[in-house]
Amino acid sequence: MGFEAPRGMRDFLPEDMRIRNWIFDTWRTCAELSSFDQYDACVVESQELFVRKAGEEVIDQIYAFKDKSERELALRPEMTPSLGRLINSQGKALSLPAKWFGIFQCFRYERMVLGRKREHYQWNLDIVGQADVTAEAEVLRTAILALQRFGITSDIVKIKIGSRKLLSELLEKLKFDLSHFMDACLVLDKRGKVEDAVLKEMLVAKGVANTEIDTLFRVLEIKDLLDAEVILGHDSIALKEIKKLFQLMEMSGYGNFLVFDVAVIRGLAYYTGIVFEGFDVKGRHRAIFGGGRYDNLLASLGGDSQPCVGMGFGDVVIYELMKDEGLIKNAGKQVDVVIAYMDSSGEGVAVKAACECRKSNISVNLSLEPQKPKKIFSQADKFGASFVYLIGQEEAKSESGSLKNLKTGEQVIVNLAQLVEFIKKVN
Amino acid sequence: MGFEAPRGMRDFLPEDMRIRNWIFDTWRTCAELSSFDQYDACVVESQELFVRKAGEEVIDQIYAFKDKSERELALRPEMTPSLGRLINSQGKALSLPAKWFGIFQCFRYERMVLGRKREHYQWNLDIVGQADVTAEAEVLRTAILALQRFGITSDIVKIKIGSRKLLSELLEKLKFDLSHFMDACLVLDKRGKVEDAVLKEMLVAKGVANTEIDTLFRVLEIKDLLDAEVILGHDSIALKEIKKLFQLMEMSGYGNFLVFDVAVIRGLAYYTGIVFEGFDVKGRHRAIFGGGRYDNLLASLGGDSQPCVGMGFGDVVIYELMKDEGLIKNAGKQVDVVIAYMDSSGEGVAVKAACECRKSNISVNLSLEPQKPKKIFSQADKFGASFVYLIGQEEAKSESGSLKNLKTGEQVIVNLAQLVEFIKKVN
Repeated sequence: MGFEAPRGMRDFLPEDMRIRNWIFDTWRTCAELSSFDQYDACVVESQELFVRKAGEEVIDQIYAFKDKSERELALRPEMTPSLGRLINSQGKALSLPAKWFGIFQCFRYERMVLGRKREHYQWNLDIVGQADVTAEAEVLRTAILALQRFGITSDIVKIKIGSRKLLSELLEKLKFDLSHFMDACLVLDKRGKVEDAVLKEMLVAKGVANTEIDTLFRVLEIKDLLDAEVILGHDSIALKEIKKLFQLMEMSGYGNFLVFDVAVIRGLAYYTGIVFEGFDVKGRHRAIFGGGRYDNLLASLGGDSQPCVGMGFGDVVIYELMKDEGLIKNAGKQVDVVIAYMDSSGEGVAVKAACECRKSNISVNLSLEPQKPKKIFSQADKFGASFVYLIGQEEAKSESGSLKNLKTGEQVIVNLAQLVEFIKKVN
Repeated sequence: MGFEAPRGMRDFLPEDMRIRNWIFDTWRTCAELSSFDQYDACVVESQELFVRKAGEEVIDQIYAFKDKSERELALRPEMTPSLGRLINSQGKALSLPAKWFGIFQCFRYERMVLGRKREHYQWNLDIVGQADVTAEAEVLRTAILALQRFGITSDIVKIKIGSRKLLSELLEKLKFDLSHFMDACLVLDKRGKVEDAVLKEMLVAKGVANTEIDTLFRVLEIKDLLDAEVILGHDSIALKEIKKLFQLMEMSGYGNFLVFDVAVIRGLAYYTGIVFEGFDVKGRHRAIFGGGRYDNLLASLGGDSQPCVGMGFGDVVIYELMKDEGLIKNAGKQVDVVIAYMDSSGEGVAVKAACECRKSNISVNLSLEPQKPKKIFSQADKFGASFVYLIGQEEAKSESGSLKNLKTGEQVIVNLAQLVEFIKKVN
């Protein structure tokens, strides 16, 4: 038996975990600063929760299995359907708008290309019950709050803003048959990854007429909201919404993060309005986060109809990007004090000292056997300790030890009873 | 389609999640105070990692499935084999002793009795590379640190300490055939849950002779270490170890948490020495946590032999116990400020105020549409807010709002530019 994780699955050794904790803690902090409530559901869901009519890739890539009672289960490929299930389960009891967040492991059985993994974690933010684009703005503000805490500026990442509603209005105006709209969306989502010629073939295969394909690609040439306004006039609802979103983000001081992109679609079938996608300006990576409005999902899952906006922000791409940009914090181990003893006579004082410190929120690496000073200090260095409390034979007799401040080099004999107070004063 | 989670799986609505976060955060804090390093591995593992010779229940209860390449995978039933895999993968690069922790979702396909779930989270602490019982003491101290932070005293929870090594020495001395030792352990683990008569039948079925069964039950009558010493004399290594553990815990100030119980076995095949089990004194619940020494597991997984001690502490029983004892903290939502506007003229100030506050680590619930004061203050109450910052038409003109301190009732007009400073000063 090898020591590797199963293909596509990730291990987190302590040095990786410290970075993951930094990312997850930042996500949670930013969500809480924006008053989102955390929730969770099990990674195992019923397969039927993920069944949708549209031919999404996600559905083909599900880890599905049966339990011993032949229940058809799945490891969730994304969180939104589970969110919908939970929201629906609350019915009228839920006070709206509900702002919910979580950090969720999701699985996709993909071909293993370029080290792409089969599981990742995803920070999800969702707002249920707010039809205004103030909801989109709130989600984007919170995502940007996290970007900024990661040290990422609008020179490094920008957010493409599109709108399925706007695209649909444009196509309708230009006589595109809207019965092919969803096919078009799912095909266009591959734009940039596959050649336009290939996309056209895919559209033909879906029964889209060549003249319509031309219309579609003509619309994709639209570069800004003014171009769209020329076609749609001033009364377009989709245009008003997207303009208001840009305005709100400008007010928030985040206007420089946003760019309009008529061709942003996102690959999930359930989006109905504004869609967005964070990307690195240098184009080295896949999308950093993505989301949009999905006003029909709750009803399609059997609940009451509610306007919803959501975002998913994965842990893999942001990590790669921060690595590229030299933004990964030096995440060495950090402990306040190393407590050690040179022979067994010091063990009792060491143990008591460790317990007292920990009770007072001072973190302690306690030696589990007698050790030589050289090893103790090299450990203290490795653990990033601020202090070493070392109990020798002489000190043990008087329930005391030698406390060395590793920053100043200062060394004093400190009694067990005074140790906590002493460390708290200096630290 | 229903809105329920699949059978045996748990959802965490925000009010549940706040309690779960409190439990998980406490676990993480206590592990970090004791200088354990966090790690993680995927909940999906290879089935073969969990294959063991001994007839453990855990193995029969695995969620097993094949992926699209016919790989035999499993949702982990426990974490220790994955820990072993990761430790083994590090080989000589790992500096010892290694103190690792994590909080892990684990799955067991059990019959659904008494609301017992099929997944739970478990706090694991492990120390690799320390043969002395100082390792057991360190794990137990850290578990007790968490109990105390949950408000649990030694009147509510005690920890049974046993030793497979001691039991084996006792049985050998009394001429029990040790080739049946592991069968005996796995059967005895059910003691208290099934009648002794049934246990005896199970032992007979495993080929244990009746005279040996009598010996076994005679040994289980041993009430304290003195009784054991009468049989084993002063040279027993197992007895010395267990005595030292009691001594170390006494030194730590935690002696009153421990009781000796020769019959504590734990249901996992890999334990080799001291085993322990936290239980509620009133006997209302299953074990709160359990663990012990497993010196042979790493080698059995293909790695170098290393002495190891570990503990698993589940989230379900501790929650039930804290509920019984009235120890669940009132975990209402907490937000610093509710920021709201009465008509759209105030939206810009509200948005800017929210962004400034959040950047300064002040958490904000921002209204996403104009609202009436009555609704705003009732929301603020529900969110446990300290302040309401309300922008009316008049205030909006001067980029300011009315800030109400909900504790004192004090209300002042505060300019947007001064808001953060003002809140930080008062809060």
